[in-house]
Amino acid sequence: MTNTKVFPATSNNKLNLKDFIQPIEADFTLVESQLNSNLIDDNQLITELLALVFQAGGKRIRPLLVLHSSHASTPANGKFNNLHITLAVLTELIHTASLVHDDILDSASIRRGSQTMNKRFSDRLAVLLGDLLFAQASICLAKIMSPPIVGIYGQVLGDLCSGEIQQMKQQFAINLSWQDYINKSIAKTASLFAAGTHSGAILNNADSEIVLALKNYGLHLGLCFQIIDDLLDYTGSADSLGKEAGSDLKSGIITAPALYVLERKDKAASELESLISTKQICEADGLKSALDLIKNNGGIESTIKLAHEHGQKAKDNLLKLSPSVYRDSLASFTDFVLYRAN
Amino acid sequence: MTNTKVFPATSNNKLNLKDFIQPIEADFTLVESQLNSNLIDDNQLITELLALVFQAGGKRIRPLLVLHSSHASTPANGKFNNLHITLAVLTELIHTASLVHDDILDSASIRRGSQTMNKRFSDRLAVLLGDLLFAQASICLAKIMSPPIVGIYGQVLGDLCSGEIQQMKQQFAINLSWQDYINKSIAKTASLFAAGTHSGAILNNADSEIVLALKNYGLHLGLCFQIIDDLLDYTGSADSLGKEAGSDLKSGIITAPALYVLERKDKAASELESLISTKQICEADGLKSALDLIKNNGGIESTIKLAHEHGQKAKDNLLKLSPSVYRDSLASFTDFVLYRAN
Repeated sequence: MTNTKVFPATSNNKLNLKDFIQPIEADFTLVESQLNSNLIDDNQLITELLALVFQAGGKRIRPLLVLHSSHASTPANGKFNNLHITLAVLTELIHTASLVHDDILDSASIRRGSQTMNKRFSDRLAVLLGDLLFAQASICLAKIMSPPIVGIYGQVLGDLCSGEIQQMKQQFAINLSWQDYINKSIAKTASLFAAGTHSGAILNNADSEIVLALKNYGLHLGLCFQIIDDLLDYTGSADSLGKEAGSDLKSGIITAPALYVLERKDKAASELESLISTKQICEADGLKSALDLIKNNGGIESTIKLAHEHGQKAKDNLLKLSPSVYRDSLASFTDFVLYRAN
Repeated sequence: MTNTKVFPATSNNKLNLKDFIQPIEADFTLVESQLNSNLIDDNQLITELLALVFQAGGKRIRPLLVLHSSHASTPANGKFNNLHITLAVLTELIHTASLVHDDILDSASIRRGSQTMNKRFSDRLAVLLGDLLFAQASICLAKIMSPPIVGIYGQVLGDLCSGEIQQMKQQFAINLSWQDYINKSIAKTASLFAAGTHSGAILNNADSEIVLALKNYGLHLGLCFQIIDDLLDYTGSADSLGKEAGSDLKSGIITAPALYVLERKDKAASELESLISTKQICEADGLKSALDLIKNNGGIESTIKLAHEHGQKAKDNLLKLSPSVYRDSLASFTDFVLYRAN
């Protein structure tokens, strides 16, 4: 795996998630099995509902990051243990619970190539299913019995909600600042990445410099991930994304590609401003004009550059860790995030 | 406070919640202040949203039960401490979070005399607000750092969801059994009551007999509470309930008053069966006929008797505790629950 691939990735040069699983395969199997366990009670209905969510797939990026970061910060005389597994499970449970609730908020019908829970059943059941997943997460968090980890994940749970609230308040806001966009991206995405990448080091009693480096690695990797996500909304196909290109913009969600054009303060910027503020972007013709404006005025290229900058900052932080196969995996992970196609 | 009041209570003979606060006033003030604190982060928006929920009122029945039960099981040489306060806060947070999400599921517009969060803002924000409250609860649960308490509250979180799911599946089910009704009532209500009444004794390392007695007290009190709740749906006024009489039945939710008529297997039973299975109860005329059938065939009186039986079982369990002002309060609480008007 190298850092020289051409963007965007094609199916031929895509980094393979399996390569990241190999060094931590036994741990990953444990995580997968715990994700599919009902930690709450022996109610068959609940067990089936929970299993259903994880059978629907998912890349398991966050647990992979937790496992590699935990190993990368395990001292020579320390021990990777069951709490790190619980941490990986906790991180994926919170992510999945928030997706189930997000899909209700967005009235989404496809996720990970399968029908969303709200579409397959109802909004009612999806609210409850998300609650069940948060309940599982809450049991994991309590099991870890570590006050600093409680503080970190408590903050993440708040961030996820405040990120969604910020996004709601920012719809169609043509005066959105870069700081608003970055703050929302941290709250929605990077906060959970960072929690996952540095909590293992805390459990390992690693030096504070290592803990901070892994936190910043997760933060920049999470931002890189969100920026690529926002980019894919412009460049991806309905097949790979499970939604039409431009669907964020269509709902008035302004992300990096549009921000780059809006900040130009030229003719293209005012045309885009007008398409957004009059909500013409909600209709097919207006959306097409806006997408063309963004593509023809450097919105895509500048966004790719921004994602690469955060990817590089993520990698730079890894230099503070001792060399290991896990550190190498974390470095390659930034490429996976940068070159992913969905 | 005596056990001789005439049912139903009027505003003149209602037991006053303030009487239950008096013996534990300092603790109760701490609970109230923690309920209004943002445990998650320093985000002002989140702080305001959380405060809003608790400003909307609420009787705080569950924290009162936790505080009295914890004191009632504190050994002579033991100490009531901050963990008991956290337990009381946790119990109310879970209750409130589930109400916020229930109101979305029920499309309810009034709760505790105020507009519900889904009505006041939107379903979207109410999903997030419920999640925030669960996040606060999750922080409290983790702070207690007790594996048995994690198990108990984990089960409660699952029960709340499975109770709602059971209720959805049982709508318009004229073949509903008493066991189905009781199981659903335990999951929806009594499980959290029981968690709150016996977890303090676990933190106190009380004898297993005391722990079990307080668990059963909470279980029967919770059932009594739910049965009275179901009764008030038939007998209460829109003013005191915040919803029209018969609104549960109108949505096909079959509770004790209807079950008593359905089990008669006579003409009244088949008339009621027909009104439910044809969904005539969803219309004003059909609902009125069903309510009349239930009122004229002993549905109300039998339900009052059932609630009293569970109230008595709750009290009987208290006899295993040493006498104290807290034990007396817990006994009076069953009367409060039996004679409440909303």
